[in-house]
Amino acid sequence: MSRIPRIVILGAGYGGIVTALRLQKQLNYNEADVTLVNKHDYHYITTHLHMPAAGTDKPDNARVNILKLIDEFKIDFVKSTVVQIRPHDKKVILEEGVLSYDYLVVGLGGEPETFGIPGLKEYAMNIRSINSVRLIREHIEYQFAKFKREPSRTEALTFVVGGAGFTGIEFVGELADRVPELCREFDVDPELVKIYNVEAAPTALPGFDPELVEYAMDVLKKKGVTFKIGVAIKECTPEGVLLATGEEIRTNTVVWTGGIRGNRMLEEAGFETMRGRIKVDEHLRAPGHDNIYVIGDCSIVMNPEGRPYPPTAQISIQQAEVCAHNLVASIRGDQLKTFEYQSKGTVASLGRGEAIGIVGTKKVKGGAAALMKKLIDLRYLYIIGGLPLVIRKGKF
Amino acid sequence: MSRIPRIVILGAGYGGIVTALRLQKQLNYNEADVTLVNKHDYHYITTHLHMPAAGTDKPDNARVNILKLIDEFKIDFVKSTVVQIRPHDKKVILEEGVLSYDYLVVGLGGEPETFGIPGLKEYAMNIRSINSVRLIREHIEYQFAKFKREPSRTEALTFVVGGAGFTGIEFVGELADRVPELCREFDVDPELVKIYNVEAAPTALPGFDPELVEYAMDVLKKKGVTFKIGVAIKECTPEGVLLATGEEIRTNTVVWTGGIRGNRMLEEAGFETMRGRIKVDEHLRAPGHDNIYVIGDCSIVMNPEGRPYPPTAQISIQQAEVCAHNLVASIRGDQLKTFEYQSKGTVASLGRGEAIGIVGTKKVKGGAAALMKKLIDLRYLYIIGGLPLVIRKGKF
Repeated sequence: MSRIPRIVILGAGYGGIVTALRLQKQLNYNEADVTLVNKHDYHYITTHLHMPAAGTDKPDNARVNILKLIDEFKIDFVKSTVVQIRPHDKKVILEEGVLSYDYLVVGLGGEPETFGIPGLKEYAMNIRSINSVRLIREHIEYQFAKFKREPSRTEALTFVVGGAGFTGIEFVGELADRVPELCREFDVDPELVKIYNVEAAPTALPGFDPELVEYAMDVLKKKGVTFKIGVAIKECTPEGVLLATGEEIRTNTVVWTGGIRGNRMLEEAGFETMRGRIKVDEHLRAPGHDNIYVIGDCSIVMNPEGRPYPPTAQISIQQAEVCAHNLVASIRGDQLKTFEYQSKGTVASLGRGEAIGIVGTKKVKGGAAALMKKLIDLRYLYIIGGLPLVIRKGKF
Repeated sequence: MSRIPRIVILGAGYGGIVTALRLQKQLNYNEADVTLVNKHDYHYITTHLHMPAAGTDKPDNARVNILKLIDEFKIDFVKSTVVQIRPHDKKVILEEGVLSYDYLVVGLGGEPETFGIPGLKEYAMNIRSINSVRLIREHIEYQFAKFKREPSRTEALTFVVGGAGFTGIEFVGELADRVPELCREFDVDPELVKIYNVEAAPTALPGFDPELVEYAMDVLKKKGVTFKIGVAIKECTPEGVLLATGEEIRTNTVVWTGGIRGNRMLEEAGFETMRGRIKVDEHLRAPGHDNIYVIGDCSIVMNPEGRPYPPTAQISIQQAEVCAHNLVASIRGDQLKTFEYQSKGTVASLGRGEAIGIVGTKKVKGGAAALMKKLIDLRYLYIIGGLPLVIRKGKF
C-alpha cells in the first residue's frame, strides 16, 4: 500500500464516537487517516433523551459538541448526512460530497420500527434525536396552552406512549414528574391529565425480572400512569389511537417507543439485513466484507441462545472497543479480536429518585438504583470526555 | 334603604381592581357591600403581556393573585364568568350563580376587533390574557421545533404581527429580541426567521409624534423587523395572510393586535354601544342608568376634539379613581365628580433597553425612555399593591 489506509466512520452515536476516540488513542502518527462523518456537529446521549423529551432536563445536557471530544489533529470531522454506501466502489456518498475508504465503520443508528401499524409514521413522534425530543417537549407544552384556550378539548391533556420497553418506561416516568409542573405553570387541574402506556407484549419491560417490573409499574401507577399491557395499537389517527380491544383513546399526542430497526441505507447498499440490521461476523464485520465493520443499532449479535441482543448503548460501546482494536490490528496485520458481549447490568429510571435494575446478579430498586443510573451516566461521560466532561455535563 | 347598598364590580382589570381598592379604602364599616367578580383568580397587567407572549418574561410576572391585593374582610371576591347583565332586574348572571346589585361597575375589558377581515378570528392569536399569551409563546417555540423536523417548511419561521399600534410595536420589539435566543436553543440559522409587522393605517403608531415613530421603526428594522405600512390584511388563511397589495405571506403564526372593541355582553344587555363600547356621561355612568358605571375598554370618553380617547391602562386607572369617588358620593348623597382625562405621557417599549415616549410635553427615546417605562410599570404595582408588590414583581 503506497498511501496510508483511510478509515471512514459513519455516525457519531455511541458506537461511532467511541470507535473514533479509541482509534485516536491507539493509532500511531501517520498509520491511518480517520474521518468521522455525522449529520450534526454534536454527539447525543440517547439514553438521556427521555428527560428533555418530557421537559425535565435541557436538551443541551444530552449532547456534546463533537469537536470537544475528538482531537482535530488526529481525526477529521465532516458534518454531513450520509446518502448512500457503495461497498463495491469503496465510497460513501454524502449530501455534500463523496468519501473514499479502505475501511468503513457503519454506526448509523436505528430508525423507529412501526411494524406496519397504520398512521404511526404520520402521527406519532419518536424519542430519537435532539430535534425529535425538542419537538415532543414543545408539542406537550403547546397542548397545555391550547387546552386553556379551548377547555372543552380535554383530549389535549391525554398523552399516549406506545411501547413499555426501556425508552417507553423511562419516558412515562419523566412525563409523570413533569405533569404537575406543567399543571402549575398553565393553571390546569392535574385530574384532567391522562398518561397511557400501551404495550402489545404480555408484560412491560419484556425480558426483565418480573419482581422489578411489578415494582416499576407500581411506582409509575402511583405517579398517575395508566398501563394497557398486552394491548396492541391497531391504528394511529389524527384523533388518537385505536386499540386492538376496540377501545379508542382520543389524544393529540402519541409518542412511539415500540421498537427500532436498522438504517434503510443498509438494505439499499445491498447488504443482507433483518429489520434493517446486519448480522455481523465474530469480528463485527459485515459478511463478505472484510473491510466493513457494523456496530450499534445497525448490527445484530446473537446471544448464546441464538437470539439477538437488544440494541443498547452498552453493547454499542463494547462493540466500538473491539471494532477499534480490529481496525488497528488489520492495518498492522495483527490478529483480530472476537466480540463477546458482557452485560454489566441494566438500570431503568422511573423518574425523580426512582429506578430499577440488575447490576451483576443483584436486583436494585428505588433510590439506590437511581444513584446507580447516575453513576452509569457519569461513567459514560468519563469514557468519551474524561473528567472535564463529567464536570461540565455531569449535573444530571 | 333598610339594608346597606350592594356594589358589584365586574372584571378585575385595571379599572375593576383599582375601583375595588379605592372603595376598600374610602368606604366606612358597613357603609356598602362590595363584590368583585372576575373570570380568573388573578389580575393581569395587560401592558406587560407583550413580554410573556414573546417569551422574554414569565407569564407569572404579568399577574397578581387578587386575594393578595384586596382585603377579604372588606371586599367579597367571586371567581366566575359573567354571562349576562340585566339592568332592569339589577342582576348579573354568572356561570355559577346570580348576583343582585344596587350599583354596578362594568370593567369587563375589550375583545379583539377584527373589522370583518375573514379568517382573523379563526387563525390569528391575540395578546389579551395570560392564557392567550402562553398560547402565543408555546406556538412560536413549537414552530421552531417543527421546522427542525421539516427544514423545507421555512414558513414555520415566518411571523406576522397584524397592527402596528402600541401592542403590535411592543410585541415585535420583544419578538425580535427573542428570536436570537430561540435560534440558539433550536440550532436555527437566524437568517431564515422573518418578522413582518403589517399595518393598514398610513403610519405605525398612528397619532404618535412622527419623529419618534421614525426612531422606533429604525430601531425595530435594525432588529430584523420588516414593516408593511399602509397595507391592509385582506384575509387570514391556514396558510398565511393575503395582503391588499395581492402579496401573500406564508406563515403558521399570525398575531392580531389591530384593534379592540367593547364586550359583546353590553350590546346584548340593551345598552347603546359604538363598537361594543358605551359612551358614558361626565360621571362615567351609562346613559339612562344612574347606578351603572362603565370604565376601561368598555367605555368611551370623548376628548376635547370630540374623538374617543384610545383605550389605555392609564385612562382606566383614572376612571377607576373617579368611579370609586362617585360611588361613595352617591351612597352618602354627596356631589359627583366629573371625569377629565389627564395624560401623564405615554411610553412604548421597543424591546431590551429601547423605548420611545412623550412625558409631559417632552419626547424621550432610547435608554432613558426604557427606564421611564420601567418606572411607569413600578408605579402601577405600587398603586395596586404598595411596596410589597413592587418588591415581589418589580424585577421586570
